[in-house]
Amino acid sequence: MKYGARNKIKATVKSLKKGDVMSLVKFEVKEINKMASVLTTESVEELGLKEGDEVFLIIKAIHVLPVKEG
Amino acid sequence: MKYGARNKIKATVKSLKKGDVMSLVKFEVKEINKMASVLTTESVEELGLKEGDEVFLIIKAIHVLPVKEG
Amino acid sequence: MKYGARNKIKATVKSLKKGDVMSLVKFEVKEINKMASVLTTESVEELGLKEGDEVFLIIKAIHVLPVKEG
Amino acid sequence: MKYGARNKIKATVKSLKKGDVMSLVKFEVKEINKMASVLTTESVEELGLKEGDEVFLIIKAIHVLPVKEG
Amino acid sequence: MKYGARNKIKATVKSLKKGDVMSLVKFEVKEINKMASVLTTESVEELGLKEGDEVFLIIKAIHVLPVKEG
Amino acid sequence: MKYGARNKIKATVKSLKKGDVMSLVKFEVKEINKMASVLTTESVEELGLKEGDEVFLIIKAIHVLPVKEG
Repeated sequence: MKYGARNKIKATVKSLKKGDVMSLVKFEVKEINKMASVLTTESVEELGLKEGDEVFLIIKAIHVLPVKEG
Repeated sequence: MKYGARNKIKATVKSLKKGDVMSLVKFEVKEINKMASVLTTESVEELGLKEGDEVFLIIKAIHVLPVKEG
Repeated sequence: MKYGARNKIKATVKSLKKGDVMSLVKFEVKEINKMASVLTTESVEELGLKEGDEVFLIIKAIHVLPVKEG
Repeated sequence: MKYGARNKIKATVKSLKKGDVMSLVKFEVKEINKMASVLTTESVEELGLKEGDEVFLIIKAIHVLPVKEG
Repeated sequence: MKYGARNKIKATVKSLKKGDVMSLVKFEVKEINKMASVLTTESVEELGLKEGDEVFLIIKAIHVLPVKEG
Repeated sequence: MKYGARNKIKATVKSLKKGDVMSLVKFEVKEINKMASVLTTESVEELGLKEGDEVFLIIKAIHVLPVKEG
């Protein structure tokens, strides 16, 4: 299985809240090595990003795709 | 600082690849507790998700927003 | 009408499930020629994508924008 | 393989344009049954969507995730 | 023309930076009334959002779809 | 506070509709200077975008991230 995406996190389901149309699922992270972000070069420069800088990576839950392999 | 997003990962910059318009930044994860995903209830049912299930969370790099606080 | 997007699929509504805030709409596809994806060059190389390769294109429903022309 | 997403299109790679950071890949669609969209109930009502309506589904290429199974 | 989206901003092109695969376009805003956001109810509660609160709305450029009508 | 995103709009909350899992929040815009969009260079050329062109910028509410600073 190969995905055209830079981020793949191994996790287990902790809780589910099922709504009428959308559901919210929470996960415990089992394994994560690194993360990657793509942004405009302009934003990189405005942030002044360089090796070693500490940041927060914000991700809306809607952009997280759970996949069950095998 | 409070974000209208369920996922916030503390990380440090490991490398940068600056392109003409877009850049790819890699991060080492410093702290991550849990992750959350929002998907259709229909997808939850098709996946048969329940507590304890192991999944992979796939996230395109474009959906990861770096923020520098302070 | 011209859209700043690579994918435009002609479709008709098959069913609607209206929720309190979000709704899920299903469509029958009437016409689709090709699809396009943008991903990191790194991902293209990791997938080893080349002409003729068979893949699945996964799209979260939240990223599909219905437009009524005319 | 089960994905937490409503749309899965079988396709073959037709062409690749590799850029410095991002790449654009075009696909020929092999099999597509239906499509699904999630939008606000307010938008559904403003569009006046009902069974049989003809629409265009617009999807930015960045939101299309290619996956190679097996 | 009716869009299945809550936000529609009238704007004119100010500048273009064309890259090999992706381009960055800047716009001057001509008309904007209100904006809308969809987020988890959990996030709304964590932010403690209520009428009159001042916030910043952050939007990655990749999520902005330019459309030329007529 | 610095965000890895090109668009930042100052706004105040006008109304909230809380759903079981997702909520819809409406905002009055207080300050907006310009907007930016990233799209494929191919789309820019198909749209024939040039300085001064009038467009509509369409943004799904799900892609708008509210942040409370301070």
